[in-house]
Amino acid sequence: MGKRVAVVLAGCGVFDGSEIHETSAVLVHLSRGGATVKMFAPNIEQMHVVDHLKGAPTEEKRNVLVESARLARGEIQDLSQLDVKDLDAVIFPGGFGVAKNLCSWAVQGKDCSVQAQVQSTLQAFHSAGKPIGLCCISPVLAAKVFPGCEVTVGHDKDDRAPNVPGGGVWRGGGSRGVESSHPVAPLCSQGPDVPGGVGRPDVPGTAEAITQLGCTHVCKSVSETHVDQKNRIVTTCAFMCKAPLHEVFDGIGAMVQDVLKLA
Amino acid sequence: MGKRVAVVLAGCGVFDGSEIHETSAVLVHLSRGGATVKMFAPNIEQMHVVDHLKGAPTEEKRNVLVESARLARGEIQDLSQLDVKDLDAVIFPGGFGVAKNLCSWAVQGKDCSVQAQVQSTLQAFHSAGKPIGLCCISPVLAAKVFPGCEVTVGHDKDDRAPNVPGGGVWRGGGSRGVESSHPVAPLCSQGPDVPGGVGRPDVPGTAEAITQLGCTHVCKSVSETHVDQKNRIVTTCAFMCKAPLHEVFDGIGAMVQDVLKLA
Repeated sequence: MGKRVAVVLAGCGVFDGSEIHETSAVLVHLSRGGATVKMFAPNIEQMHVVDHLKGAPTEEKRNVLVESARLARGEIQDLSQLDVKDLDAVIFPGGFGVAKNLCSWAVQGKDCSVQAQVQSTLQAFHSAGKPIGLCCISPVLAAKVFPGCEVTVGHDKDDRAPNVPGGGVWRGGGSRGVESSHPVAPLCSQGPDVPGGVGRPDVPGTAEAITQLGCTHVCKSVSETHVDQKNRIVTTCAFMCKAPLHEVFDGIGAMVQDVLKLA
Repeated sequence: MGKRVAVVLAGCGVFDGSEIHETSAVLVHLSRGGATVKMFAPNIEQMHVVDHLKGAPTEEKRNVLVESARLARGEIQDLSQLDVKDLDAVIFPGGFGVAKNLCSWAVQGKDCSVQAQVQSTLQAFHSAGKPIGLCCISPVLAAKVFPGCEVTVGHDKDDRAPNVPGGGVWRGGGSRGVESSHPVAPLCSQGPDVPGGVGRPDVPGTAEAITQLGCTHVCKSVSETHVDQKNRIVTTCAFMCKAPLHEVFDGIGAMVQDVLKLA
């Protein structure tokens, strides 16, 4: 009997939604693991819409559920419809949308708030002892909702030189598309924002913020997961690490397998 | 020395752009194969924008290159910038966007026209003897541009019962989002259009149209490719077959490997 797994999305696109390749990897590995998947997203407006070609915000408005439906090929439900009784586990792929739409980490860091349905979903799975899988920036959701938990977002030292294309930036007025009117997230990199850059979060700053929330950050490579057995939380760093796409894919596979084992 | 492979996109989302999971699979397998990838899309307006939750067209306007940039994490160029001399092979993932934005197959079937830059790109690789990889509905591009070529879009008999959710539909006023003012594509299914259905093309109709264009349609399963050695065209059916996502992923892997072998 296959496990029943919820996948919760935050839009469609790395800079303002769920990271597309992380989401696809989660779904491929769940399919291979024989799981039955139900997809969900909150029916709310995106914090903003980023033109992924220019790396800059636009004036457009888009809805998180409607855009997430692109990743789900139309088969998705409002997160308010999720009932933990029907499910064995939940997985949140990463992407800037997690830090913009599912919580306000992108602008407030550790002082962020978590979207109400996202918070109640996480608490419901946790209370039921059902596993929670998180990758990339999504572990900050667990760090915020479950003080004392253990997660990984990769290394606590940046593996990238500053001032180079693709260098460490998590926010800024440019390609990552957080408007300059937003306050700077306290622990995010102040590095330059490179148009067309791959846009990865500030990993050491994120790890430090997780520690300041009273959680334990565990350093792991892109191929590894960390399993918090007590809280039944499985994390892997995915695109928080600088790694070829197939290694990100494989690391997410390890996370999915650990979630299915716990479910 | 890794092969240099162009991936040409048609937007971002199965119903009006490139199929997301096919595109991600292409990129994962190219990464594993050690290829250097350059991504391209035409800088044109989408035929239309489909709300993937409702399965219906909206009044929005979106640009193919800008939306494709979501799949490319910002690293994409205007298709007009592609120079075949810098590349060893080209791959076109599938999705309705191929039949709506890269050619007009969705509304005109075999009488469609192919977007000018797409046509010249295909001809340039073909003339240089460099391989072309296509999956899902994309083989119709080769069938239109290279009369006499051999391709697969899966089986020439439909593997789905009519009148069931997810049943065979390629067009219609409903969930696939081709406006009712468009003429019916001559060889597309007349079956019901199910809101929220997975939206796969009419496979036997597509195979028949390919034959009418003077090409050879070769029946293959989701795990198989067909290699037209003379024309150096590699095709696989991907989401044209009813198969679990991981089998679609693996079939695309076989296509990518065959392309890299020929390159």
